[in-house]
Amino acid sequence: MGQSYWIWYPGDMELYYAMQQNFSRVERGFGWPAFWKSEGFRHRVAFRRTYRLEQETRFSVISDSVGFVLVNDRKYPFQEEIICPAGEAVIAVHAGCIQEFPSIYISGEAICSDSDWMVEDYDKPLVPVGYSKYFTLPQQRPSRWEYSQQVYLPIRSEECEGGLLCEFETELTAQIEVSFLREKKAVRVYCGESREEALDREHCYYSWLPEPDTGRCPRCAVRFAFLDGVKAEEVQVKALHQYVDIPVKADFSCSDEVLNSIWQVAEHTFRLCSGIFFIDGVKRDKWIWGGDAYQSFFVNQYLMADRDINRRTWLALRGNDPMTTHVNTILDYTLYWILGVQVHYEAYADKEFLEQIYPKMCSTMEFCEAQLEEHGFIVGREKDWIYIDWADLDKDGPLCAEQMLLAKCWKVMADMSRVLGVSGEDYQEKYLALTEQIQKYYWDEEKGAYIDSFTSGKRHVTRHANIFALLFEIADEEKRSSIMKHVLENPEIPQITTPYFQFYELEALCRAGHLSEVLERIKSYWGGMLERGAVTFWEEFDPKAPVEEQYDMYGDRFGKSLCHAWGASPIYLLGRYFMGIRPLCPGGNQFAVEPQLEFFEKLDCRFPVADGTVEIKWDGTRLEVRTDLTGGMLYLTDGREFSLQAGEVNCWELFA
Amino acid sequence: MGQSYWIWYPGDMELYYAMQQNFSRVERGFGWPAFWKSEGFRHRVAFRRTYRLEQETRFSVISDSVGFVLVNDRKYPFQEEIICPAGEAVIAVHAGCIQEFPSIYISGEAICSDSDWMVEDYDKPLVPVGYSKYFTLPQQRPSRWEYSQQVYLPIRSEECEGGLLCEFETELTAQIEVSFLREKKAVRVYCGESREEALDREHCYYSWLPEPDTGRCPRCAVRFAFLDGVKAEEVQVKALHQYVDIPVKADFSCSDEVLNSIWQVAEHTFRLCSGIFFIDGVKRDKWIWGGDAYQSFFVNQYLMADRDINRRTWLALRGNDPMTTHVNTILDYTLYWILGVQVHYEAYADKEFLEQIYPKMCSTMEFCEAQLEEHGFIVGREKDWIYIDWADLDKDGPLCAEQMLLAKCWKVMADMSRVLGVSGEDYQEKYLALTEQIQKYYWDEEKGAYIDSFTSGKRHVTRHANIFALLFEIADEEKRSSIMKHVLENPEIPQITTPYFQFYELEALCRAGHLSEVLERIKSYWGGMLERGAVTFWEEFDPKAPVEEQYDMYGDRFGKSLCHAWGASPIYLLGRYFMGIRPLCPGGNQFAVEPQLEFFEKLDCRFPVADGTVEIKWDGTRLEVRTDLTGGMLYLTDGREFSLQAGEVNCWELFA
Repeated sequence: MGQSYWIWYPGDMELYYAMQQNFSRVERGFGWPAFWKSEGFRHRVAFRRTYRLEQETRFSVISDSVGFVLVNDRKYPFQEEIICPAGEAVIAVHAGCIQEFPSIYISGEAICSDSDWMVEDYDKPLVPVGYSKYFTLPQQRPSRWEYSQQVYLPIRSEECEGGLLCEFETELTAQIEVSFLREKKAVRVYCGESREEALDREHCYYSWLPEPDTGRCPRCAVRFAFLDGVKAEEVQVKALHQYVDIPVKADFSCSDEVLNSIWQVAEHTFRLCSGIFFIDGVKRDKWIWGGDAYQSFFVNQYLMADRDINRRTWLALRGNDPMTTHVNTILDYTLYWILGVQVHYEAYADKEFLEQIYPKMCSTMEFCEAQLEEHGFIVGREKDWIYIDWADLDKDGPLCAEQMLLAKCWKVMADMSRVLGVSGEDYQEKYLALTEQIQKYYWDEEKGAYIDSFTSGKRHVTRHANIFALLFEIADEEKRSSIMKHVLENPEIPQITTPYFQFYELEALCRAGHLSEVLERIKSYWGGMLERGAVTFWEEFDPKAPVEEQYDMYGDRFGKSLCHAWGASPIYLLGRYFMGIRPLCPGGNQFAVEPQLEFFEKLDCRFPVADGTVEIKWDGTRLEVRTDLTGGMLYLTDGREFSLQAGEVNCWELFA
Repeated sequence: MGQSYWIWYPGDMELYYAMQQNFSRVERGFGWPAFWKSEGFRHRVAFRRTYRLEQETRFSVISDSVGFVLVNDRKYPFQEEIICPAGEAVIAVHAGCIQEFPSIYISGEAICSDSDWMVEDYDKPLVPVGYSKYFTLPQQRPSRWEYSQQVYLPIRSEECEGGLLCEFETELTAQIEVSFLREKKAVRVYCGESREEALDREHCYYSWLPEPDTGRCPRCAVRFAFLDGVKAEEVQVKALHQYVDIPVKADFSCSDEVLNSIWQVAEHTFRLCSGIFFIDGVKRDKWIWGGDAYQSFFVNQYLMADRDINRRTWLALRGNDPMTTHVNTILDYTLYWILGVQVHYEAYADKEFLEQIYPKMCSTMEFCEAQLEEHGFIVGREKDWIYIDWADLDKDGPLCAEQMLLAKCWKVMADMSRVLGVSGEDYQEKYLALTEQIQKYYWDEEKGAYIDSFTSGKRHVTRHANIFALLFEIADEEKRSSIMKHVLENPEIPQITTPYFQFYELEALCRAGHLSEVLERIKSYWGGMLERGAVTFWEEFDPKAPVEEQYDMYGDRFGKSLCHAWGASPIYLLGRYFMGIRPLCPGGNQFAVEPQLEFFEKLDCRFPVADGTVEIKWDGTRLEVRTDLTGGMLYLTDGREFSLQAGEVNCWELFA
């Protein structure tokens, strides 16, 4: 008997939960659904498969949809056992549902619901079904996600300001449960990411009246819970932390305690922001943003290496064809969406997903191509958001950074086409033509850098486009040196102010070999948040901001998200550049380990690679590398290289 | 204080209920959702309007959606009173909902929700909101339709075949309610359109176990209810007939009792099939079919003259842009959808709707145009259904009848464009080019008729294309005479076998002045069903079928729908051709009354025209015509004409 899955039209599950996610933001009593096109799931589908049965078999179809099962022209209801004689069985399961996406589960010996079924929506040809490892039991329903739950008791409770303040050991995404020990009272519960927020009845984002029957509040971000008008002896308070259990496959421990703390806090931050999808933050926005999620792909690869959350997030972001608006309305986020497919493919060699998503990649590029001006540069339409970063970019005419992203998209299209055995010639030509135009119009020989705009005449230089030119290898060797000198190492070019774009800058610095500077910046910037008491990394951090304003953002007293996915990038930087772990082929069955031992006195680390792990231990003289995978190469900084033996301890005495 | 309506994205309400309707078919215990693309409503919309307030005002927004109200950049929750100061108030109401379409209701003095609000879905530009006269109260919810209800008690009950058979006075769409007078029992209730069906436990379409709390079964078609294993003294049985209350504005009574009965039964048939939408039949399919609904437009105009059910049905059928499949998957049904817009406009001068639907008419024609072959003829794609009629048509290559419909579509596009002040030149040219091609390729001089196919070489003549050539005036005077002689009056051309296409044939005969033959056919064909005991008109009727097989269809013992909308066409034929009532301008403010008195000894009739009515009384010598509208002209068959005075009795002694 095969493993049965709940099956549905591919993408429907993601579109359904994407709406739940993007409509879940709450701000002081009202809901704030994301302000972009929110695409619906399908309502009427037919699942199809033909079996050739050697003997009679029985199966039943479970579904909450309206519909029936057709076996060789005979109809049967759902939830009843169907006897199917030997021979050819042409099976169709017809299902319609309004409130949620139609899904079915088939249990049977020979006939069961798995990834080999096909489905149609009466619009496009048959496609392989959608399924998830989270929905494999007949009593489940794919429209009701089952979160894992862990109960936390307060680590500290304190009566103050006319109520009871409970502190949990860290930030959670939890339902606060209030049990009155004697008589029940109406109580308002204020949930804060900080003590200050929980105690501020006016500005606190989330405040709830617990549901009378259960005493539970809705699930939300919470580290501190303030129970107004309640005394300690009256109640028991719990936090029911609810999460998607995605196992962590990495550890990091070194001789530097600040770095160790940064890793731990980054890990916790990232796990909180990794649920059904990658979201930006757990208090705010709780939305699936393409640019943020693209960065999460990199961290994921070095922390959880979970292929499925990438898939879900990418299906949720892109929506249905035809594409009519940009991902999150942002031009650059559409372009990251294309780039993300390659990042995903390189990490997991996930050809099944590539095949599924490739037609949408093509239609995405067609959509973008309709926005090109005469030089082949992409420009925003009315209402398109040209974001790149919160920075003073010269957005007159086509913006250079967008063209860098677009060029990389053409390259990715060419590469991914080749993987699927489709000709990518046309994409390659577009890539070459666009990069040529970029050099011609944006490279400023005198400034030794790319300028934001060639139409304004201002020849304004910012770091952004130049960083992309390095990362996407659009600048040649000579230009790269020039950019390093005239932009990245030039204090007169305004600094990056967001952790979001710091990710790209630090990666560019790593690639240029400036590891020492990167490590310093990680320790000072992320370490700076720790000094302020952070238990998760923030959306934004200005080391010079006064403590009393450190939670401010958007002119809002507690507007800042204190647990924001893009704060977790040290995990990627440490894994990729300091431990030097990188796949040498898509999926990482061939991989390199190139630890930069000079930065560490001791190391005890573990990272995921392909389906296995690599462990690195270092005590200052002795390097031990273990892996359960064949295909690894160890590169030492002195130029020596060794192939790693799976299942063995590979040891080198380096400074004996 | 203005009238507030619930408002939503236009079309969403229709798409939502269309799914409820098209997923409501049940066949012996399982649901049978319609087998075509079922389009979703929107999930995330923003309602927008700017007010200039002379003084402070208050309002509140009611909604079950997730969202908030934005007034000049300040946010407010739903369901709370908002105080809005004098001056400009830019208001946006943001709403997201997954399970149903987002909708809002605003109550306030100066600010309330009416048809002047605009809405966007983050995909297309702002459009006027959708609304309905059925949803005007804050305690309502547009996703919960409130049916009118009338309670029927059985007119006859009889213990037989081990249970109790209850007969109601006519067919209903009802919940059967079973109240046990002493102790409750589990009982299975079989609902039949006929006595035979209710008593046939195996083949009966609907059988239910009443809900334990209420004793009620789901709403379904029922004339006979059989309660298995129950005795008369144990129970009280009721039928709760649930319907959309669309007032009937016509009466028909004449000296011929058969005709009177035909009218009554046609009226009841049509009302049962006219709910939120025009559906084909009340037991089966209960689906919204374009071709059936198109015919209902004609009957509606002469019975209820209800503009809104047309609007709802047309929005439900067409779905969202882009169009990717044909209406109900049927090529001809797409073409009827275009034609229906003109029928609607001619009847109600509904420019508001024409403006709303016109962009979809254009995109529908673009969709069709992509299916033209080299001569400009339309052909089906794989999986398109080329229907026309259940008849032996020669479907090799492009089918003539489809080209007739397409030509008429181009004409309708030209006409409707002109109404909106848009140039219809291009459409007019396409019309002329296509009709020329039709004459060239399909007119067979020797046969004196249009042939089905010019590619097969068979030169097969059927009535269908030739009837369309008459109705759509594609044939000139000479060809029309030829068609009458060589096709319609030629017994060697196979007869029309469905009431569906009889509608078109009888109309063509009426236009050709063959009223006497038409009246005879109405009386014999529809009268024939009455002789078989029909209380509603059937999907199909073969006068020669043996009584014991009269409910058979599709090889199914009770497969025939006994209450089918297209059976109601005598209402239209009597009103339009026998009473001679027809609009002389769109909306009918100018109208003709041209009664064919020679067919009637007596008449006492009333018909809707524009916003009023026309009454016709005739006692064999004296004709009385009353109308509450100015603009009517009476035409007598002897050539005399009189203008009708509103509010007066217009009298003529004709055979004194």
